[in-house]
Amino acid sequence: MNGSKAKKLSTDSYKGVRDFYPADMAVQEYIFGVWKKAVESFGYEEYGASVLEPADLYRAKSGEEIVNEQTYTFTDRGEREVTLRPEMTPTVARMVAARRRKLTFPLRWYSIPNLFRYEQPQRGRVREHWQLNVDLFGADSIEADVEVISVAYRIMKAFGAADGDFEIRINDRKAVLAGLNGARLSPEQMRAVTRLMDKKDKLPRDAYLAALKEAAGADIDPAFEESEATQAAVRALSAAGISNARFDASIVRGFDYYTGIVFEIYDADPANRRALFGGGRYDDLASLFGGDKIPAVGFGMGDVTMRDFLETHKLMPAPRAPADYYLCVMAPEQAAFAAATADRLRAAGSRVAVDLSFKKVGDQIKSADKRGIPAAVVIGPEEAAGKPLKAKDLKTGAESELP
Amino acid sequence: MNGSKAKKLSTDSYKGVRDFYPADMAVQEYIFGVWKKAVESFGYEEYGASVLEPADLYRAKSGEEIVNEQTYTFTDRGEREVTLRPEMTPTVARMVAARRRKLTFPLRWYSIPNLFRYEQPQRGRVREHWQLNVDLFGADSIEADVEVISVAYRIMKAFGAADGDFEIRINDRKAVLAGLNGARLSPEQMRAVTRLMDKKDKLPRDAYLAALKEAAGADIDPAFEESEATQAAVRALSAAGISNARFDASIVRGFDYYTGIVFEIYDADPANRRALFGGGRYDDLASLFGGDKIPAVGFGMGDVTMRDFLETHKLMPAPRAPADYYLCVMAPEQAAFAAATADRLRAAGSRVAVDLSFKKVGDQIKSADKRGIPAAVVIGPEEAAGKPLKAKDLKTGAESELP
Repeated sequence: MNGSKAKKLSTDSYKGVRDFYPADMAVQEYIFGVWKKAVESFGYEEYGASVLEPADLYRAKSGEEIVNEQTYTFTDRGEREVTLRPEMTPTVARMVAARRRKLTFPLRWYSIPNLFRYEQPQRGRVREHWQLNVDLFGADSIEADVEVISVAYRIMKAFGAADGDFEIRINDRKAVLAGLNGARLSPEQMRAVTRLMDKKDKLPRDAYLAALKEAAGADIDPAFEESEATQAAVRALSAAGISNARFDASIVRGFDYYTGIVFEIYDADPANRRALFGGGRYDDLASLFGGDKIPAVGFGMGDVTMRDFLETHKLMPAPRAPADYYLCVMAPEQAAFAAATADRLRAAGSRVAVDLSFKKVGDQIKSADKRGIPAAVVIGPEEAAGKPLKAKDLKTGAESELP
Repeated sequence: MNGSKAKKLSTDSYKGVRDFYPADMAVQEYIFGVWKKAVESFGYEEYGASVLEPADLYRAKSGEEIVNEQTYTFTDRGEREVTLRPEMTPTVARMVAARRRKLTFPLRWYSIPNLFRYEQPQRGRVREHWQLNVDLFGADSIEADVEVISVAYRIMKAFGAADGDFEIRINDRKAVLAGLNGARLSPEQMRAVTRLMDKKDKLPRDAYLAALKEAAGADIDPAFEESEATQAAVRALSAAGISNARFDASIVRGFDYYTGIVFEIYDADPANRRALFGGGRYDDLASLFGGDKIPAVGFGMGDVTMRDFLETHKLMPAPRAPADYYLCVMAPEQAAFAAATADRLRAAGSRVAVDLSFKKVGDQIKSADKRGIPAAVVIGPEEAAGKPLKAKDLKTGAESELP
């Protein structure tokens, strides 16, 4: 505001992040609303934390490389190293570990944090995205795995997806690791191999097998047998009416911390067959903070992928109008009456916008129409003097007395 | 997860920010929910943006000093200077300016961003807080000022505050500046004087007058007359049934960008008489981005202050239970039946948590009670075979058939 150095400022946002104008924000709020309602129907409680975390939280888990190359990490003026969280799991493990003696397990927790990754922006890859995180702590049974997968399924259904629109693919990381153990791989080779397996769909078959051979030091084609845990999970899901779940030996997930069941939700559209989101069991993470293991199973689901899925499958609902009624006010003399009328309608639960221009009524009605508001109420001297108010339906032109 | 360098990690959050465990998150969600519903009832639409902004956005408005000393600003790997937003107004002005030719004015916009300030944490001063921002762009009438103040009033009422719990104090910054012009002050002296006036309540009277004298270079005691705009606003508010608004010559607000009406909501509790939040008219801000002025009036309202107010005035509602029903399952054989029952209840709109422990029924009921869940449903072999299900009210012990 220093007038002496008036220089035209750029209206661009920071590179790789999104501005949410009301139409885009409405989509976000729709997605978040469906997420919340679905997970709360299973008794999950919301938690939250700051986007700022001590950088050490990620070093311990991920090693220097990821902290330096893929995260936003900086030093604050108190010489503390701070990271903008790239994922929520370390944060929730930290919070659970901090109060492990006070909390009543099992915990059903969810959150919708924004997450940052320093990478080149491209379609579906932004530097900041939002992600539903759903976790169940303190239960290590198949029933817990099945519940979490059921939550994922119910979310898809709550968005209007049919069973044929998506597929749940399940594997058991314990069985994968046991299988690789049979191939006498070192821990580093196992990590390299599971990471490759996670990218299987993105590589041509030949390239995949060649990379596997290099990583493992021998010809291998991991195609492990279905474990008992996976069979039981698929059976329980089927008993609960979830018939689009199946074993898939190639699912391993990218993160090293998974210790049991892993799963991914796939888009079943042949033109778009890819993993939408996924999760699994990670029983060892909380013990990084000292103390015993805390069994945990959960998943994460991003806003960008969800939006793409809804648009691809034409499941995005029509946008909601910004108000139910638009009050057109003829002259300032009726402003107080209009304000009182608006308050009365609001008290009855309606959303009411008042035109503040005192332009011609026709112009005010056009303004309502342009905003998609379904009904207009004209307020002039007669109405202010007691004439019954009429709501005009802007689609049909029909008039009806105001409730 | 590198097992070879297992080192116990700290469970502390980053300094000066808050972890939101479910009980605290529920308070946040309650406050956000009341905010949203109240502002949407006036036809305001939600927008959003990233917490990351180009540092230049704040330099232009606030000068180097604030950017360097009071904000989180760092350089990214692309050599861009990035700031964690300390307030939302520059962001919304940027967004409005970027689409000034496409948007339908007036705009009624709101957002609930998190904001960062680098300062020493103390009670009520955290490094990250959330703030409702409400703005009306493109209308420069008294009616627009009155609407925005009415929104602030309605929010307080929606939280259950009585008119006697708070007071709306209004002034006209134009009149203040004209008055100071009369005292032949330079622009720098004016800024220094208005900033002092904003701190009036925090200084002893003598110290205040002495500081004013030093800032103005002469004895002054700014006590300006009520302007016509202020009179009209108070009159219109009173006509709309808002009787706790009054002129206060000492209200000037801390930011330099205000150009007209300014207002603050005061806690009327004698033990806690302080400004809760405020706002005003700022017609010049969008022109920083080039192009004509865009009239604007709005306010911001923080989560920490709001929570303090609700607790001081005992207006915080009892926490909501995490579920409506808790299903106690005797054995794994009934797990599928329990899952189906839970789904049925959820489809009817209830929130249902299922116990996964298969412990004694008494222990499962204790677990429900500990979580504050109001009703438990026991599922054993008989229920799975068709016996009608009963919901047990955990407060009264009464049983009733499940809907």
